[in-house]
Amino acid sequence: MAWIVEVVSVRHFFVLSLALNVSLILRAISQNGAPMAAQKEAKVAQMTFLSFPSLSSPSAAAPATATPPLGENGGERVINLDHGDPTMYEQYWKQTGDKTTIVIPGWQSMSYFSDVKNLCWFLEPEFARQIVRLHKVVGNAVTEGRHIVVGTGSSQLFLAALYALSPRDASNPISVVSAAPYYSSYPSMTDCLKSGLHKWAGDAKIFDKREPYIELVTSPNNPDGFVRHSMVNRSGGILVHDLAYYWPQYTPISSPADNDLTLFTVSKSTGHAGMRIGWALVKDVEVAKRMIKFIELNTIGVSKDSQLRAAKVLEVVSDSCEQAGGSEYAESFFHFSHALMTERWTLLREAVKCSGIFSLPKFSPAHCNFFDNNLGSQPAFAWLKCEVDDVDDCEHFLRGHKILTRGGKHFGFSPKYVRISMLDREETFNLFIERLSQIRS
Amino acid sequence: MAWIVEVVSVRHFFVLSLALNVSLILRAISQNGAPMAAQKEAKVAQMTFLSFPSLSSPSAAAPATATPPLGENGGERVINLDHGDPTMYEQYWKQTGDKTTIVIPGWQSMSYFSDVKNLCWFLEPEFARQIVRLHKVVGNAVTEGRHIVVGTGSSQLFLAALYALSPRDASNPISVVSAAPYYSSYPSMTDCLKSGLHKWAGDAKIFDKREPYIELVTSPNNPDGFVRHSMVNRSGGILVHDLAYYWPQYTPISSPADNDLTLFTVSKSTGHAGMRIGWALVKDVEVAKRMIKFIELNTIGVSKDSQLRAAKVLEVVSDSCEQAGGSEYAESFFHFSHALMTERWTLLREAVKCSGIFSLPKFSPAHCNFFDNNLGSQPAFAWLKCEVDDVDDCEHFLRGHKILTRGGKHFGFSPKYVRISMLDREETFNLFIERLSQIRS
Repeated sequence: MAWIVEVVSVRHFFVLSLALNVSLILRAISQNGAPMAAQKEAKVAQMTFLSFPSLSSPSAAAPATATPPLGENGGERVINLDHGDPTMYEQYWKQTGDKTTIVIPGWQSMSYFSDVKNLCWFLEPEFARQIVRLHKVVGNAVTEGRHIVVGTGSSQLFLAALYALSPRDASNPISVVSAAPYYSSYPSMTDCLKSGLHKWAGDAKIFDKREPYIELVTSPNNPDGFVRHSMVNRSGGILVHDLAYYWPQYTPISSPADNDLTLFTVSKSTGHAGMRIGWALVKDVEVAKRMIKFIELNTIGVSKDSQLRAAKVLEVVSDSCEQAGGSEYAESFFHFSHALMTERWTLLREAVKCSGIFSLPKFSPAHCNFFDNNLGSQPAFAWLKCEVDDVDDCEHFLRGHKILTRGGKHFGFSPKYVRISMLDREETFNLFIERLSQIRS
Repeated sequence: MAWIVEVVSVRHFFVLSLALNVSLILRAISQNGAPMAAQKEAKVAQMTFLSFPSLSSPSAAAPATATPPLGENGGERVINLDHGDPTMYEQYWKQTGDKTTIVIPGWQSMSYFSDVKNLCWFLEPEFARQIVRLHKVVGNAVTEGRHIVVGTGSSQLFLAALYALSPRDASNPISVVSAAPYYSSYPSMTDCLKSGLHKWAGDAKIFDKREPYIELVTSPNNPDGFVRHSMVNRSGGILVHDLAYYWPQYTPISSPADNDLTLFTVSKSTGHAGMRIGWALVKDVEVAKRMIKFIELNTIGVSKDSQLRAAKVLEVVSDSCEQAGGSEYAESFFHFSHALMTERWTLLREAVKCSGIFSLPKFSPAHCNFFDNNLGSQPAFAWLKCEVDDVDDCEHFLRGHKILTRGGKHFGFSPKYVRISMLDREETFNLFIERLSQIRS
């Protein structure tokens, strides 16, 4: 795999050189008047508020639809990096041309049923095949001895897992915990219907009740990107592993995940969030059956159209890995996206250095079996801390600079932190880097 | 619209003639040995059990995948009409050829967002346009002053409606009722998570608590096909109208539905169950917002691929209505499907007459604004009653004849009734008619 090392190294040099240039340019801009600094208290006006992720959250503004070029009126534009909308990946899929195009005639996929012989009767067989193949190619999960359950995104599978794992006849709902900072939607999803089956019980690190519990282990973690294991770690605990970000572009693939219940999604692996497709690998057949039952009651199955499309996309990802460097695929999907994430994280660290008032997590390199190399992490979100003493609320502070992020309190953590999406389109990301680098205390 | 009357009349004569032939053939078969009668106690062996609609329900067997021709070993085949799988419609969509084919390149529809300016930010604008257009063409619902909320099938919208309409801070969950026989999934969907917001409270006709309630009004009703209105009909009640079957092929369109909250689905209107797409027309903006919030927490939106496909299908349905008799469309989608349902109901009533031990609901004709004619109802399900005194469980009785149906008890009603899907493929339906007509007490 020497050629991989070579490709990575060349790209790294290129990125370092690029970062140096950007850094110098940004410093020059900064010294010539710091146009953004004067606006830091400006109100963010005329934003269209969305209810996602929270109807009541003022941070949930729409991504700007008009996209003025950087340097013109980019300074007026609201940069929305609150959501993890993975539009960065459009670039790769445009390059692959017709390979991932699907054609569905009007009379196809009309039945509720996809595979009446499968326990998960609404799982498209071709999608199941491509899931198994991709995990084998990437080496990030054991699929042998697992039941595959498809869901309308991994959100639905998370809810299905809670339903499946909660005791039926307990007098009290089971506690659901996750170590802070945890994914901001876990509490509201768990308690949405005030369920008698399960209830949100907060930070796993301080959970000390002597009773059964469900622990959500997100690894690499959303929002901070660190590799995680169970934090409670005692008997009576049931684990759900959310491995949405356990893909080579974000984190070294150290070994195939071998858990009881693991969740994945196309939104973060290939960038197809609009499909709303996720999958679970489930060891226990009774748990799988109950998850399937939940999805029946919730949505009577999962869009066949999106499953067929997801199957095609996963197929091309696997093909691109197996045929990288050949006539069909210049590079694999993961080489492309890993290089892009490396570039972005290099630019972000430069911008943070340039500004001088923020800090970012530091990740130790680890061996990645997929790239056969020692590599650092470059998460889908940046977990940025504002190091200025008199700034207690970093989300509010950045909002003053028209950068919309999700504050630490949503993740059960200090409001000095914010989560920032690293997966937006290039133009938005570059505008963000430019603006961030100019922020002073 | 005289040509419509003419077309309907010609088809009616054809169907009557066909029914007479079938009736005579069936009588001949019956007199020549009644091969089925001897098998009526035979066990249904080697069936693949599905968890849909209920993991514990033995009635939920898979539709047969092998399809032997009628008259050969059709007698051995299990006929599964438990689900309302609308595969009957494949025939029409095959006829329309490429008109409803969609092509989606790999880089399209990647974002979570469909329309950031819309309250329902995950609703594809083209799908919204085609919904409004189709309701105008058919005349079955008022869309002015309504918010459209898209859902992963109308199941998800039903759950979203319960969430949106349940009081936030009540000490007890609100009662959810529907007049029996009611849709068999309402109780388990309502109580799936033992919610503190809402609880199933059974038959609306006997609900007498002096407290707020949510009443589900399904019209035409699933399972019995009758047009329905609120049964409780007193103050404090909140109504949800499930109009999945309020389309011209099933029931006369008497006036545009003008309710506070109305649910529709492509599964039953066009037959595309595999898409998992439904929509709600919602008058109150706050209710719409809460439904959207539920769908965010449940699945973070709805498959874009299926919405785009649904938009194309609805467009062709409207086109077929507006251009029926022209070079592009020999007949409208609703003329085709109405004629098919007329044929099927005629055959079913003949078979029931032939057998002599069952009865079916009788529907009074009413004026249909769409066809501009007085027409009867021909529901998507037959609500069949076994009139034999010593048969208390019709589902069990028909299972002995290898006909899988859903028994009355699932609908909060007498087990002497069963619900039978009228929307299966032609071959399955014909086999069912043949077998039913031969059943004797």
